[in-house]
Formats: sequence, structure tokens, C-alpha cells
Amino acid sequence: MPRLTRSESQARTRADLLLTARDLFLADGYAKTSLERVAEEAGYSKGAVYSNFKTKSELCLEVLGLIHETKFAEVTELLAAGTGFDDQLEAFQSWAERTLGDVGWTMLEFEFAIVARDDPALQAALVSNLGIIRGTVAAQLQSLADSLGVALPMPPEDAATTVLSLGLGLGIQRAIDPSLSARLIADAVRAMLPAAARATSG
Amino acid sequence: MPRLTRSESQARTRADLLLTARDLFLADGYAKTSLERVAEEAGYSKGAVYSNFKTKSELCLEVLGLIHETKFAEVTELLAAGTGFDDQLEAFQSWAERTLGDVGWTMLEFEFAIVARDDPALQAALVSNLGIIRGTVAAQLQSLADSLGVALPMPPEDAATTVLSLGLGLGIQRAIDPSLSARLIADAVRAMLPAAARATSG
Repeated sequence: MPRLTRSESQARTRADLLLTARDLFLADGYAKTSLERVAEEAGYSKGAVYSNFKTKSELCLEVLGLIHETKFAEVTELLAAGTGFDDQLEAFQSWAERTLGDVGWTMLEFEFAIVARDDPALQAALVSNLGIIRGTVAAQLQSLADSLGVALPMPPEDAATTVLSLGLGLGIQRAIDPSLSARLIADAVRAMLPAAARATSG
Repeated sequence: MPRLTRSESQARTRADLLLTARDLFLADGYAKTSLERVAEEAGYSKGAVYSNFKTKSELCLEVLGLIHETKFAEVTELLAAGTGFDDQLEAFQSWAERTLGDVGWTMLEFEFAIVARDDPALQAALVSNLGIIRGTVAAQLQSLADSLGVALPMPPEDAATTVLSLGLGLGIQRAIDPSLSARLIADAVRAMLPAAARATSG
């Protein structure tokens, strides 16, 4: 293995800690995961954790950001790989069945929202995160409509809020009752782009 | 005040404890509310609480059931009072703006779902609650469609899951960011009943 420069080594430590923290937060939740445990599990000192992340809440915000980026990348990739609207919707629906209601992820999001309840700085960070998420969903929906040559029936921000709300709502219900289908979110996207649905369903 | 019979007195004690527990759970959350505190605040002994509710989780399940009944009664009442679809939708939207994202209620629901994560009996109780809620929303939507003389565009259970998911998803977002409008849930109900919307908006 080539010798790492100091900054490469620092970046690797940070990335290792973030991935370890993600796995622990997802498996055990926020309250039950300590920074000591993250250090131990990742094979670093407690000092390494504290020099990279000031607090557990800061670490969790970064973990949630990383999870969101991964989920968005998955959706972007499946939409790009689909050949035609029906195919894209089918891929999106099977992603939704796998993803929405994942117990570890769903519970971590809600547990952290509760932790932020009495902390104005965390609250502000969550509001900012929500804005980024809505903006990304809006861009994905607009880009899907553009690629299909049709118009969204409402402003992209409203379309994004609707799809995001359905995803969050189905997610919490499916985390409680996994027998519930995630089909309705794909149905909602189809209903938003009826012209594209007509053109491909022949 | 007339002297109460033994069973009237027991029913009053139980109702007092339930309302006090509801107020404390909503104000402080599940973890921070103890059964001792409920007894003290309601002016009863700890024994009175324990003889009515076996555990804090059983008490919270009853509190959530009481809250759901109240919310459903509010919606039933506003739909019944509305003169025409536009009027009903306007009343529903202003109920949604007041109700969805109420921080105490939203956080209590999510905190309790997290508590139930590792408890199969509580998990089963939540699945059963969700079924009751979906059934009630389905009946309300069907009854609204019937009263307007139009058909729902999908099975009532799917319509209910869609509206309920939107409500939950908007609720968690608005609990974090109260500046977000709850308008989209009324828009979704309007989009589900386009014939009724056309007939009244003409």
C-alpha cells in the first residue's frame, strides 16, 4: 500500500469514522450509540473522533447527509438506466419497496428530529436539510419530465413536497407494518405525468 | 355535586388520568413523562394509575387512541358542516394547517414508534392501530365521494393510504419547518374527486 500523505490519512480517518458511525446509528439508533463506541468499532482513538466531529449531533447530521446523498444517487442512476417511462417507474417502485420503511434509517431520522426538538441550532440544520432534499427531489422530477418531453402539472417544488411527503408517510407506516406496499408512490409519480404514461402504455 | 356510585367514580378517575397523561405526553414527550408524574399532576395516588394502566406503554397507546378519535371527530364534523365541496375542502385545509405538524403530537407518535421498535407486542398494537386509522380514513373518503355523487378513482383503501401518507409526511416536515404549507393534502383530495371539483368550481 502506498504511503499516505498527512491530509490523505486525515481524510481516510474521517471517512472511516463516518461509515462506522452510519452503521452503528442505523443498527442501534441515536441514543444507544456513543462516540466512544464509534471510535472503538472503527479502530481509532476517542481523540480522533473528537478532532473530526465536535458533537454526536454533528456526527449524526453528517451521517444523515451521507445517507441522503446515497439514496438520491440510487434514484438518479435508476432513472438514467431506464428505457422509457414504464421501465423507469418499475425500477423506481422496486427501489421504493426496498428503501422506504427501512427500519434503521426511518427510526434514525425520526429519533434525530425528536432530539432536535429543543435545540434551535439543530432545528435550523434540519430545516436547511429539508430544503436541500426538497430541492433535489424537485430537480429530479423536473429532469424526468424534461426527458419525457412533458410538463409537470404543478410547480416543481409542490410536486417535490407531494412525492417527499408520500415517501416519508409510507416510510413510517412501512417501518411499523412491512406488509404495506410502496406502490402508491410510483402511482403518484405516474399520475403527475399522465401524458408520458399514455405515450408509453400504448 | 351528586354523590357518585363506585363505578362512576372509577370511570371518572380513569378519564382524569387519561387526560392528564395526554397533556403531559404532548408537552414533554414519552420518555420524560413518568407514571408518578401523571398521578401527582392528576391528584391521585400512584396506585390509582397502576390499577388503571398496567404500563406506561399501555397508557400511551390509550392516549394515542384518544387523540386519533378526537382528530377523526373533528374531520367528520367539518365535512358535515360544509356546504358544498369547495367549502368542505377549505375547512379541511384550515384544519390541516392547524393540526398537521403539531409538534407535541407528531413527536409523540414518532417517539412511541421508536419505543415499539424492539417490542413485538407494542409493534403488533401499532400495526392494529394503523389498520384502524386507514379504515377510518377510507370510510371518510368514501362517504365524502358518496355525498358528492362521484366515485373515488381508486379503491378506498389506496385512497386512504395516499391521504394518510401525505398527512404523516407533511406532519413530520411541518413539525421541523412550520413555514411549510399543508395545502397539498387538500389539493390531493381535490385531485381525487375531479368530477366534484368541476361541478362546484364552475
